[in-house]
Amino acid sequence: MALRSLVSVQLFVQLSVAGAMLLARPGLAAAPTGDPLPSWRDGQAKKAIVTFVQRVTKKSSLDYVPPAERIATFDNDGTLSTEKPVPTEAAYTIARVHQLAPQHPEWKTQQPFASVLAGDLKGVMASGEKEIAELIFATHSHMTTTEFTTTVRQWLATARDERTGRPYSTLVYQPMIELIAYLRQNGFKTFIVSGGGVEFLRAWVEGVFGVPPEQVVGSEGKLQLAERDGQLVLIKQPGIQLVDDKQGKPIGIENHIGRRPIAAFGNSNGDLQMLEWATQGPGARFALLVHHDDGEREYDYGRADEERTFDEVHRVALAKKWTVVSMKRDWRTIYPPYPAPSAASRTAPNAPSGRLPVPAP
Amino acid sequence: MALRSLVSVQLFVQLSVAGAMLLARPGLAAAPTGDPLPSWRDGQAKKAIVTFVQRVTKKSSLDYVPPAERIATFDNDGTLSTEKPVPTEAAYTIARVHQLAPQHPEWKTQQPFASVLAGDLKGVMASGEKEIAELIFATHSHMTTTEFTTTVRQWLATARDERTGRPYSTLVYQPMIELIAYLRQNGFKTFIVSGGGVEFLRAWVEGVFGVPPEQVVGSEGKLQLAERDGQLVLIKQPGIQLVDDKQGKPIGIENHIGRRPIAAFGNSNGDLQMLEWATQGPGARFALLVHHDDGEREYDYGRADEERTFDEVHRVALAKKWTVVSMKRDWRTIYPPYPAPSAASRTAPNAPSGRLPVPAP
Repeated sequence: MALRSLVSVQLFVQLSVAGAMLLARPGLAAAPTGDPLPSWRDGQAKKAIVTFVQRVTKKSSLDYVPPAERIATFDNDGTLSTEKPVPTEAAYTIARVHQLAPQHPEWKTQQPFASVLAGDLKGVMASGEKEIAELIFATHSHMTTTEFTTTVRQWLATARDERTGRPYSTLVYQPMIELIAYLRQNGFKTFIVSGGGVEFLRAWVEGVFGVPPEQVVGSEGKLQLAERDGQLVLIKQPGIQLVDDKQGKPIGIENHIGRRPIAAFGNSNGDLQMLEWATQGPGARFALLVHHDDGEREYDYGRADEERTFDEVHRVALAKKWTVVSMKRDWRTIYPPYPAPSAASRTAPNAPSGRLPVPAP
Repeated sequence: MALRSLVSVQLFVQLSVAGAMLLARPGLAAAPTGDPLPSWRDGQAKKAIVTFVQRVTKKSSLDYVPPAERIATFDNDGTLSTEKPVPTEAAYTIARVHQLAPQHPEWKTQQPFASVLAGDLKGVMASGEKEIAELIFATHSHMTTTEFTTTVRQWLATARDERTGRPYSTLVYQPMIELIAYLRQNGFKTFIVSGGGVEFLRAWVEGVFGVPPEQVVGSEGKLQLAERDGQLVLIKQPGIQLVDDKQGKPIGIENHIGRRPIAAFGNSNGDLQMLEWATQGPGARFALLVHHDDGEREYDYGRADEERTFDEVHRVALAKKWTVVSMKRDWRTIYPPYPAPSAASRTAPNAPSGRLPVPAP
């Protein structure tokens, strides 16, 4: 996740602390009979996916891979979820600065907080990585893991993306939801391997993609074990243990999975090393790159990305004949239906019952 | 793993580099019909295990737990494997110092290596934690992850425990093999959460306990991504990322699993925080402590452990009515049969094909 890109746009911060845990949960229903990938148009990309899956799952195939070794890893921001105008976690970070500001009067004059509070994101841009880290630590630490999950879920329940009016947990790609389900139906173990914070992701991705917490790999902050009222708690510390991006992705994969994936899915230079790592193993391998070329239905930044986050990985993908997905051409649908048919009647899975460290507004 | 305990005994170091990858693979066969825990004698411990599993798996039970939340975590050294006279990884470390010594003439006079080479383990004892770390770094780093796995498997294929003449991968508890399989048959996801190095464990535990690499949590060294001959490799660095012991166990569990276990299994003070963490969650919880009280068939150090690694956890277990297993009384068998019926005809799963950084002897 390029958290720095939070500086690239003004964001309407909508936040309220809701008591109810209502997360929309799109797309996990069984695929229609027949085509397991109905949101994928017939074309090279869809054909490449289906061909690969058949090659590694047919017992008679020379490229057969036993189920235990069918590991597939997915980047999140830009690969499973919309990352513009800012990644979901950056939107949360901004909202959280606003929410915590009354307890931090000094933030009115202290950078980078003052810029965030003034909506002056160019001011944040003027600051460095150290300041970005300060924003993350101020909003992601000094609370227990349970409290953090609670605040993330409360924010997700009420915050809306300005352009679409959608909850952030529905700004996810229906074709990728189908693809993950299709791989799982074919005996794959599907992992999310994201530059975003692992605990932020675990707070919501299981209900959306069916990926359980133990199959989410992400950047990790330091944790401390402590005792409160006779009970052990894990307190999130202002310190980084692993940055699961770029070179960090194969490291995160090795630490958590201990096996090389046979298939990997990404959308930016941050995923290049993961895609290389997956495809350099022996036997049949698969790499897929999502190209954001659909300015009408989503965003178009593959060609004109001012941060140049796509050029390098795209060049390698073309040279190595990886599968490149045109969102415009290959995807029939971008997002799952919203409001999801039964969203209002569902509660989030494993909703935590932890205390909330935030005063009511 | 108390690597320091490598100093408590003289160890016969047998090492040769074998070409063939022959690991004995005990006990994964289906349990005899009827009793899923045939190596457990009828008694309090066995009854407590079966009762707990029934409580959380029966749909009509008030304590029913959905399969996704049935997480069970097992310590390794002393809980799944014999850890005397030294844990398996310490035996490997000693053997590896001998193996690498010809490339390091300076070790003849440099501590702690000189003591290891002279078989003078009291000399090692006189050194500190820094020296122990030096031994680990010298034997566990400066090579790729694939090369490390290869050296571990080659050692396991030929090294034998002096007292029993067994390969180290068979110095594991048959009742625990059955227990892990029983939990898995009941929808549990079983994890090993060890103070030992995660990559050392992953090299052999899948074939023995059926626990795949992605369900092994352990201490982690630092990794670096590099390129060799145009291919990415992960190089093990002399540095520690996570010590997965004591307070580190709940942290390792949170980082890797992201869910609190509902059952945990340990044998020493190093497991206390994991057992507390598992049992402090809501709903039905289970903690089990292995008591080493069988000097005839294994070792007796629960009462007379000079390092006092059992007293504290035992006191808590009694106070909280955790299940305490007497190896002498509760276990009909200690080890799986060896030679395993079909061991010689099997090769290790996922045997790596990486280059070996060790010169032929």
